[in-house]
Amino acid sequence: MQKIRIAVVGLGNIGRYAIEAIEASQDCELVGIVRRSVTELPPQYQKYTQVTDISELGKVDVAIISQPTRAVPEVASSILAKGINTVDSFDIHGEIVSLRRNLDAVAKANGTRAILAAGWDPGSDSVIRTLMQAMVPQGITYTDFGPGMSMGHSVAARAIEGVADALSMTIPVGTSIHRRMVYVQLKEGYTLEYVSARLKADDYFSHDETHVIQVNSIDDLKDVGHGVNMSRKGVSGKTHNQLLHFDMKINNPALTAQILVACARATMRQMPGAYTLPEVPPIDLLPGEREEWIGKLV
Amino acid sequence: MQKIRIAVVGLGNIGRYAIEAIEASQDCELVGIVRRSVTELPPQYQKYTQVTDISELGKVDVAIISQPTRAVPEVASSILAKGINTVDSFDIHGEIVSLRRNLDAVAKANGTRAILAAGWDPGSDSVIRTLMQAMVPQGITYTDFGPGMSMGHSVAARAIEGVADALSMTIPVGTSIHRRMVYVQLKEGYTLEYVSARLKADDYFSHDETHVIQVNSIDDLKDVGHGVNMSRKGVSGKTHNQLLHFDMKINNPALTAQILVACARATMRQMPGAYTLPEVPPIDLLPGEREEWIGKLV
Repeated sequence: MQKIRIAVVGLGNIGRYAIEAIEASQDCELVGIVRRSVTELPPQYQKYTQVTDISELGKVDVAIISQPTRAVPEVASSILAKGINTVDSFDIHGEIVSLRRNLDAVAKANGTRAILAAGWDPGSDSVIRTLMQAMVPQGITYTDFGPGMSMGHSVAARAIEGVADALSMTIPVGTSIHRRMVYVQLKEGYTLEYVSARLKADDYFSHDETHVIQVNSIDDLKDVGHGVNMSRKGVSGKTHNQLLHFDMKINNPALTAQILVACARATMRQMPGAYTLPEVPPIDLLPGEREEWIGKLV
Repeated sequence: MQKIRIAVVGLGNIGRYAIEAIEASQDCELVGIVRRSVTELPPQYQKYTQVTDISELGKVDVAIISQPTRAVPEVASSILAKGINTVDSFDIHGEIVSLRRNLDAVAKANGTRAILAAGWDPGSDSVIRTLMQAMVPQGITYTDFGPGMSMGHSVAARAIEGVADALSMTIPVGTSIHRRMVYVQLKEGYTLEYVSARLKADDYFSHDETHVIQVNSIDDLKDVGHGVNMSRKGVSGKTHNQLLHFDMKINNPALTAQILVACARATMRQMPGAYTLPEVPPIDLLPGEREEWIGKLV
């Protein structure tokens, strides 16, 4: 069997978990790690080729872009233009439609495929929401996140004057409403009162119930566990009170990375273009023979 | 907008709910009802054309086959050969692979599309199981059904000597194990002890914990509510203890019929051939414009 040749672009948290997911997938192999600059790798990655330009890796089927979300549009376009499929976990919900349009044009012009926004939300949660919408066309879907660290909110908290380090926990209170529990380490000379007032006025926090708690060490609180709870209640045909519910408790980067690897595989089975996860036949995410999975899962 | 022209083949429970789901879908219209013989229709269906051969209906895009599962293979083949797409809720899990092969050949030869086994299990549950498998490739998935009536088991109970009527409830006890609560009306001259012993020895019941309860009227117990609870615990990449969970409480025929209508729509967007639900991009189940849904759901 010809393995799918994957490059990991960026060696942050997601990149490292993506390497584990590739190592655990019998139909995939890691052909190299692409980084901004070549520096010594941690021991467990030293067996892999490290480059600064993906073209140096020879034949690559798919690039897993594990870089900050803001970098994804440019990096994905440039790799697609090199004849390599891409997957990414771009997570700015409001910009997915336009990113898809842009990547779709580049992909089609170069005979390549992109699966974008392919984490768990956006990503696998989007598939569940789509399926729930089809099963129950009239009604309301709620998505409740957490408990878990919010990267975006933690970064926003760190930018507040007087904050040395911060961690923002997302706590679900139901019906898509969230409470923010923000843990802060203060800089010398600042008070919790001062920092708390500024943080609560920030646009990231001003719309939610927010509590600010001073701690001595943010590192002592770190845990990449997360969760989601999605529910839809509504109408199938003309029948009311259909109740659907999905929840999960997961290691966040491990799940994101696993979905990226499944999508890397799925790019090999799509026509040129750019896709979000609900546009991909779910069975294409799985290795091996389609009929075998139909026998097992359908 | 050109509406999707749908025929409903069979006017049992699922057929009636399918008509409701078509009436509730703005992009679909019912062009007629196909029955074995033309008899007077209940008042709410009298506005629709009733025929015994689908060819009498003029242009039909998709036929929803709402007939007993055993009739599906032949009926679907013959309609696909007439240039009409089909959807069905064939539910014998062990025969889906071979039915798909057969329908795929007929569909491809005639430029038509079939989506088979398109209820909720097999059907939407199969999509969830596939997605869970992709997110957590190593681990165990449990599917627990109920509480709800089992058609197959009720039919099997009715066939036992001494049983006038019967209803078998499926009760989930976890880890894909089910208890059977079988309610029976006895024929004159039979005892519960006699019937119970025979029923528990039947292959449908002998593998599960089964309780047989005598009642005066089966009709008083009838309720088409049902449910499912699916869970998967396992490994993403190399990270253990990933916990996924889906459950629903639903009106069984209403959900089945709604999924059939969503799949009828989806047939219009596939290449010729036969598909199970995990092979269909979930977004194709929804009406209207793809980009709009991506903006809302992804």
